[in-house]
Amino acid sequence: MPGLFITLEGADGAGKTTQGALLAQAFRALQYPVLETREPGGTPVGEAARRVLLDPSLTGMAPMAEVFLYAAARAQLIREVILPALAAGTVVICDRFTDSTLAYQGYGRGLDMDRLQSINHWATEGLAPDLTLLLDIDSDEGLSRARRKGADRMEMETAAFHQKVRHGFLELAAKETSRIRVIPAGRDIFEVHRQVINAVREKVPELVCSQEG
Amino acid sequence: MPGLFITLEGADGAGKTTQGALLAQAFRALQYPVLETREPGGTPVGEAARRVLLDPSLTGMAPMAEVFLYAAARAQLIREVILPALAAGTVVICDRFTDSTLAYQGYGRGLDMDRLQSINHWATEGLAPDLTLLLDIDSDEGLSRARRKGADRMEMETAAFHQKVRHGFLELAAKETSRIRVIPAGRDIFEVHRQVINAVREKVPELVCSQEG
Repeated sequence: MPGLFITLEGADGAGKTTQGALLAQAFRALQYPVLETREPGGTPVGEAARRVLLDPSLTGMAPMAEVFLYAAARAQLIREVILPALAAGTVVICDRFTDSTLAYQGYGRGLDMDRLQSINHWATEGLAPDLTLLLDIDSDEGLSRARRKGADRMEMETAAFHQKVRHGFLELAAKETSRIRVIPAGRDIFEVHRQVINAVREKVPELVCSQEG
Repeated sequence: MPGLFITLEGADGAGKTTQGALLAQAFRALQYPVLETREPGGTPVGEAARRVLLDPSLTGMAPMAEVFLYAAARAQLIREVILPALAAGTVVICDRFTDSTLAYQGYGRGLDMDRLQSINHWATEGLAPDLTLLLDIDSDEGLSRARRKGADRMEMETAAFHQKVRHGFLELAAKETSRIRVIPAGRDIFEVHRQVINAVREKVPELVCSQEG
């Protein structure tokens, strides 16, 4: 059995962590080996980069420094975790991946897309997800959900920034319709889970909603 | 008066920090505004990246994660420190810069040079040093000097790695003879200082050896 690489994308507060956990449960119910991980992070090097990236005190971070820190976390996660897991036939569910770089640093900060694509390609060693679930949420609603937990450095950005990011994600989805599925995420957790399962059934038809879904 | 950007390159233990301090002293004796900085580091973001890069416990760091962490520190240092200082007419003396990426990650680890050149270009916003002083030392001697202070993650590399790095630095110097000056560094500190001053006099003819030199 080959591995399967699924990424969850979307704004903070869209429910990626919750939906990733429910999806993992659905795979485990069928005895699939599953690995849940996240970006930035997932390795000691990546978690160290994450602490720098989300530190609210580092307000003057250069846009390219931000890009490179995310890329460092990604390169380490790919080499240390994702590639070995896929080679062993595991289902890998990753909270954020390359589309976040394009949405946040490309559409959000206006950095050159070709440059970001090159950096993504080098960080991932050319690996693309088999399927990406874009949890789309109104950016104001996502932010107000996320901020209940205390805002990190990215969440402190303006509403206009987060609107550009949302628009960017949707544009990426429109360009890659075979890989990216848009799932409206502003509703009931279990209704969203049902839509996630529907999308993943294109790859794994026997999947059913998790017990709690 | 325009700023002047001088970088010091070479192996750990070659005396870059000492020679940078003596060179700064020589400029200060002539009332030049001088800024001494270092890579990776020199900013809160860069020092955070430095701690990750030199942590001896992170032995499995992916080569591209390493490249991106150095690039992050560099992008932040350029934007936050070096470009503003040069714009204000300051002499900037930087301990390590882009040549270290090419020597360590390119010649040392065998990563693609074009890729590293692109990453360097994006991190530096296209800025190149006015002058680079390559303190060349026998790699065994440099390592044994550096290890007296306790080895960091890079210093724990093999002797063969450090020989490739030394060879790389010398090859870079041979390709860019107008920017890079090779200074044999295996001798008396003040003899090396005199050679450093001789090289910098091409840019600033009135410079004299510092009092202690």
